[in-house]
Amino acid sequence: MTTPLYLDEIFLARPEDIDPDKYISAKYYVESPLGLKSAGIAIATEESIGTWTEITTTNEWVRTKLPAKLYKMEGEGDSGFVYIAFPLDLFDLETSGIANILSMVAGNLFGLSALKNVRLVDIDFPRSVVQHYRGPEFGIEGVRRLVGTASSPRPHLGTIVKPKVGLNPEETAKVAYESALGGVDFIKDDETLVNQSFCPLEERVSKVMDALDRARSETGRNVLFAVNVTGSPDKMVKLAETAIDNGANTLMLDIIILGLPTVEWFLSSYSFGVPIHMHRAMHAAFTRNPKHGISMLVISKIARMLGGDQLHTGTGAGKMGTSEERRLELKKIIDSLRNEWFGLKSVFPVASGGIHPGLVPANFEALGKDCVINAGGGIHGHPLGTRAGAAAMRQAIDACVSGIPLEEYAETHKELEIALKHWGGKTLSGD
Amino acid sequence: MTTPLYLDEIFLARPEDIDPDKYISAKYYVESPLGLKSAGIAIATEESIGTWTEITTTNEWVRTKLPAKLYKMEGEGDSGFVYIAFPLDLFDLETSGIANILSMVAGNLFGLSALKNVRLVDIDFPRSVVQHYRGPEFGIEGVRRLVGTASSPRPHLGTIVKPKVGLNPEETAKVAYESALGGVDFIKDDETLVNQSFCPLEERVSKVMDALDRARSETGRNVLFAVNVTGSPDKMVKLAETAIDNGANTLMLDIIILGLPTVEWFLSSYSFGVPIHMHRAMHAAFTRNPKHGISMLVISKIARMLGGDQLHTGTGAGKMGTSEERRLELKKIIDSLRNEWFGLKSVFPVASGGIHPGLVPANFEALGKDCVINAGGGIHGHPLGTRAGAAAMRQAIDACVSGIPLEEYAETHKELEIALKHWGGKTLSGD
Repeated sequence: MTTPLYLDEIFLARPEDIDPDKYISAKYYVESPLGLKSAGIAIATEESIGTWTEITTTNEWVRTKLPAKLYKMEGEGDSGFVYIAFPLDLFDLETSGIANILSMVAGNLFGLSALKNVRLVDIDFPRSVVQHYRGPEFGIEGVRRLVGTASSPRPHLGTIVKPKVGLNPEETAKVAYESALGGVDFIKDDETLVNQSFCPLEERVSKVMDALDRARSETGRNVLFAVNVTGSPDKMVKLAETAIDNGANTLMLDIIILGLPTVEWFLSSYSFGVPIHMHRAMHAAFTRNPKHGISMLVISKIARMLGGDQLHTGTGAGKMGTSEERRLELKKIIDSLRNEWFGLKSVFPVASGGIHPGLVPANFEALGKDCVINAGGGIHGHPLGTRAGAAAMRQAIDACVSGIPLEEYAETHKELEIALKHWGGKTLSGD
Repeated sequence: MTTPLYLDEIFLARPEDIDPDKYISAKYYVESPLGLKSAGIAIATEESIGTWTEITTTNEWVRTKLPAKLYKMEGEGDSGFVYIAFPLDLFDLETSGIANILSMVAGNLFGLSALKNVRLVDIDFPRSVVQHYRGPEFGIEGVRRLVGTASSPRPHLGTIVKPKVGLNPEETAKVAYESALGGVDFIKDDETLVNQSFCPLEERVSKVMDALDRARSETGRNVLFAVNVTGSPDKMVKLAETAIDNGANTLMLDIIILGLPTVEWFLSSYSFGVPIHMHRAMHAAFTRNPKHGISMLVISKIARMLGGDQLHTGTGAGKMGTSEERRLELKKIIDSLRNEWFGLKSVFPVASGGIHPGLVPANFEALGKDCVINAGGGIHGHPLGTRAGAAAMRQAIDACVSGIPLEEYAETHKELEIALKHWGGKTLSGD
């Protein structure tokens, strides 16, 4: 289908016309009976200066300076990829920031009836936008220094206190202590626990940090505890200050539920002197369908820009699904967190969800040395309890780093042996 | 597939066991090769006290007091609806509020590999949760009083200043003035305009409100102007105060982009004495696929609870799609905004996106008298310009309210006649 000439003139460009310093560039997968070009122009129009019909109220300056540009297409017929460049003049970075960016690159377009499906697959920010943000304060190196793994890097072992909610502060501290003695580097609240009456944040943090101090005096090892301070913005600062005052050494945010503008505000307005652990609960509402929505890769880039030191990225194997397509996307996500990016520090990718010792090799293969491998049920469900469960996970990691098959390593490490017997090496799905 | 007995005991309930005052109840569409019961238990487990494996760290209190309950199923085989009740004790309403609710009813579950697709279709909040929030300050009645339509209710006519972005404050004010003289009741910023350098918010509001004062002195009619204050939380209060100081009589929020916790904070911490207009840009990233994600009905209920006076709900006909399924959902959404709900005021549903005079009857039929019908391109694209475009839309509304066919009404109303000739009565899709 041909688009009207006046639209072509305004909204089409050649790739060589797009100066990467002056545009935010977005790549979309589209399906449309109108064909790729019309689909791309529909997005460029809707998200910059146009609408579905010609209007009488526009002017030459607007038509010249502000249109988004369709500058590249891949595929043919009804589906493929379109690349659209949004000129920086469109945006109000100073006051509206990431909200304003999202309103254009990820706004109304998802509902356009001209598009059967549309997915924001990737995004490239110019240097000036990336450097407008602080990026991670610690990054992988900084977190490693806190934990003590800078000199001999290996995947960090993390755990989520389980059950997700319901333990009181003493019980939580006991699970944390056992986890620390078993060998974890990192402990986190589950994403649904904040300040419930059965486990008030202040008391929880205080008791867990005491327990981790005791663990350190026994093992000599530092363990991070990420306290979930996800809530209404006015409550979050108080929660974070309370956590820090009681010794918390990491803060956790549910970044999708909070909304990225709130994450932007929180991390640009406050510095708590501890790493930020980013959970992504709710992301799969819009990331899971490979044809529609927003990709995790886009979220990852924004999360790094805003200042996450650790980000849940998906697993090489676990309860959250592991198709080939997903594995390829995981690789891109991980690259986007660890590559050189206008000088920003790197982000620890976190594999979490249904991992047990038998799945560590697949996750090590997918995520490499510079990652956090989390196990909740895969630690606290160990037949001998939490301490043995943590030890088994740590043994699995050590085996991978040494290049020794798990079965062989298990011959001399009984916690691992028992775990492999209990869960095998398979991915467990469902409940 | 049968679920282990210990899971049945913990996570199953009969409908009559669920006291609606003590649970948040969610209805999900699920597709799972494991069958409905296992799918439902997978959600109840993941989102309350369980995980994918039995754990050693739980206790009797947790197992008794906190599990979510699968209490009803509809459908058979691999797909259908499951109803899950989350006990209020699970939630931290006071500090974490809507973020905490979302983390459970709409969190990790979307990524579970046990579910091929899962959609949060509907949600029921108990009285105590609903009344924890203020609801709309104005509601339909209050907005009608401001506009002056309380005594003879009809759909309000709204417009979006077009082009979406690019006009300077003077140009914006001119479009607003022409729209007001043509007969609109309501004018809004587009969702991507906030405080860009070409149209600073302060100057824009000041000039538009001056223009609307002039219009009132000529027509005797009040027009609302919704100023978009969507941004990082720390900037929003200042933007809103600036808008109000310059005479703004409505504020607009992009509620999905902001994140519902930020909307919760903004509307529970501040009262600006004006109605709140809620835009839903980005919603279709997760509402559009009928099998996966979160329904607009769920968003609508939360938006009403948090305090929206007007909410974009979708159109009876427009550029955003109008399948039969969508029409049925639209009806439920509208009901949820206008029904009796523990004493909360009602919310004006807003039809917006690709509407022109020829589509007013379909929207009037779908949304009734108590709605706002927005036209952007359908006003500013009128061959005789904005004023005539607004007049044509208003004539179409008056025709519908009087039960006169548009063609007949157009015989004596030339703006409408021209509009119908220009756009016809069909839905335009695409660009």
